[in-house]
Amino acid sequence: MTTPVSGSNEFAPFLERLADASAKAIMPHFRQDFAVDNKRNEGFDPVTIADRNGETVMRELINTAYPDHGILGEEHGAENLDAENVWVLDPIDGTRAFITGLPTWGTLIGLRTLGTPSLGMMVQPYVGERFAGDREHAWYQGPLGQKSLKTRPCNRLADATIFTTTPAIFTASERHVYDRIEASVQLARYGTDCYAYCMVAAGQGDAVIETGLQAYDIVALVPIIEGAGGVVTTWTGGSPSEGGQILATGDPRLHDILLKELAKPV
Amino acid sequence: MTTPVSGSNEFAPFLERLADASAKAIMPHFRQDFAVDNKRNEGFDPVTIADRNGETVMRELINTAYPDHGILGEEHGAENLDAENVWVLDPIDGTRAFITGLPTWGTLIGLRTLGTPSLGMMVQPYVGERFAGDREHAWYQGPLGQKSLKTRPCNRLADATIFTTTPAIFTASERHVYDRIEASVQLARYGTDCYAYCMVAAGQGDAVIETGLQAYDIVALVPIIEGAGGVVTTWTGGSPSEGGQILATGDPRLHDILLKELAKPV
Repeated sequence: MTTPVSGSNEFAPFLERLADASAKAIMPHFRQDFAVDNKRNEGFDPVTIADRNGETVMRELINTAYPDHGILGEEHGAENLDAENVWVLDPIDGTRAFITGLPTWGTLIGLRTLGTPSLGMMVQPYVGERFAGDREHAWYQGPLGQKSLKTRPCNRLADATIFTTTPAIFTASERHVYDRIEASVQLARYGTDCYAYCMVAAGQGDAVIETGLQAYDIVALVPIIEGAGGVVTTWTGGSPSEGGQILATGDPRLHDILLKELAKPV
Repeated sequence: MTTPVSGSNEFAPFLERLADASAKAIMPHFRQDFAVDNKRNEGFDPVTIADRNGETVMRELINTAYPDHGILGEEHGAENLDAENVWVLDPIDGTRAFITGLPTWGTLIGLRTLGTPSLGMMVQPYVGERFAGDREHAWYQGPLGQKSLKTRPCNRLADATIFTTTPAIFTASERHVYDRIEASVQLARYGTDCYAYCMVAAGQGDAVIETGLQAYDIVALVPIIEGAGGVVTTWTGGSPSEGGQILATGDPRLHDILLKELAKPV
């Protein structure tokens, strides 16, 4: 270990508090039908309740600790977006995983400083994992202990493992471009949401290609990937801080290759 | 808790020993590139090594404890298949999840007694989960403690959540049938391997529809689903103990509905 597990960003310790609070609010609703009768037909929606409660407790902590900071959340909207520091929150990224009991959803806690993603964490409280980064470093805590995160080298499409939530997210022309890329890589995986970005940061995969993302889907993940040695941009190489068409890559050389592929005419 | 966490099958305690041993053999190879250089291009294949080592340690334990039992494993083949009790082993079900660092693979440990799946366990050692069953009961140990597993009610396709590893597993005519079913359900999830069957047992989903399965892909999962209140058969309602086209359902009423759908002419 040559890298500290918690980063040097002044707000990094606060991430842990937000992670603890959101996990406590969300976890009682995960697999809550476990061994009890299903209540789906009574209008009961555990993921919505968990989402709202998770965001509420994080907003309360932020407003108390840093009343001058802004907040952009999936559930409760935006406040004070002109602030130097804006927290960008998605309490449950991967709601379909959550409602089917799978452990591949996560709580995304990001900080945007002067418009740039500067600090972020993905929390998977069922597994007991946290992936975090501050652009300079990225770190992991979980069943394997505490480790620095480092992307793996990959400079050929034919060697690459890529992830996307589902090909159904793409428009027709995007799908054409994506399918052409998928046909040239070693392995493509679907259905992984935020977990895919953490696996790229951890050197377990090489790229994530997605579209239609909101800021709260990506801001928390950018400093993790960057801190692990990777690159996150839009498909045209622009800032990922507002979401949209996103390309996240572990090896900067593969990022260049994929940007060229994404720019090829349909 | 009205149901014991460990079942009444005489071999149930032995399952735990097999789970401990296989986890110890497999886990050093999971995410083993974590923060180190990638060795893919040097012919290094961590999943194959983990698979073989996991099966070897389970075979040694079985041969020592029950020398008259048979064994059918994915990696090391079959021995003594005419025995009354045959252990059916898949050390890593979900190799694509394993090699991409995702926590949705599992070790499958099944027992077939006089040809019928009688006892089974799915072990997810990274998360620290075990799902097990003996046809009469099914139980869970993991981050949420110890619980009995119980499927959830679902008697309409329109309410159902279904799982399949990927539509790419189906032949053209199977795909036609599957797509027709998928178009009529509430939610379809891909890429979940053995984890999907455990989520049906846990009441988090309603059915798994797959094809081309080997015995070692399904035998361990049948007593879990059955013990939780569900049904597992082939697409034509036959015994699932040799694999093939498999339908696993939490609610027996939905099983009847899906068998009829699967039998409809293309």
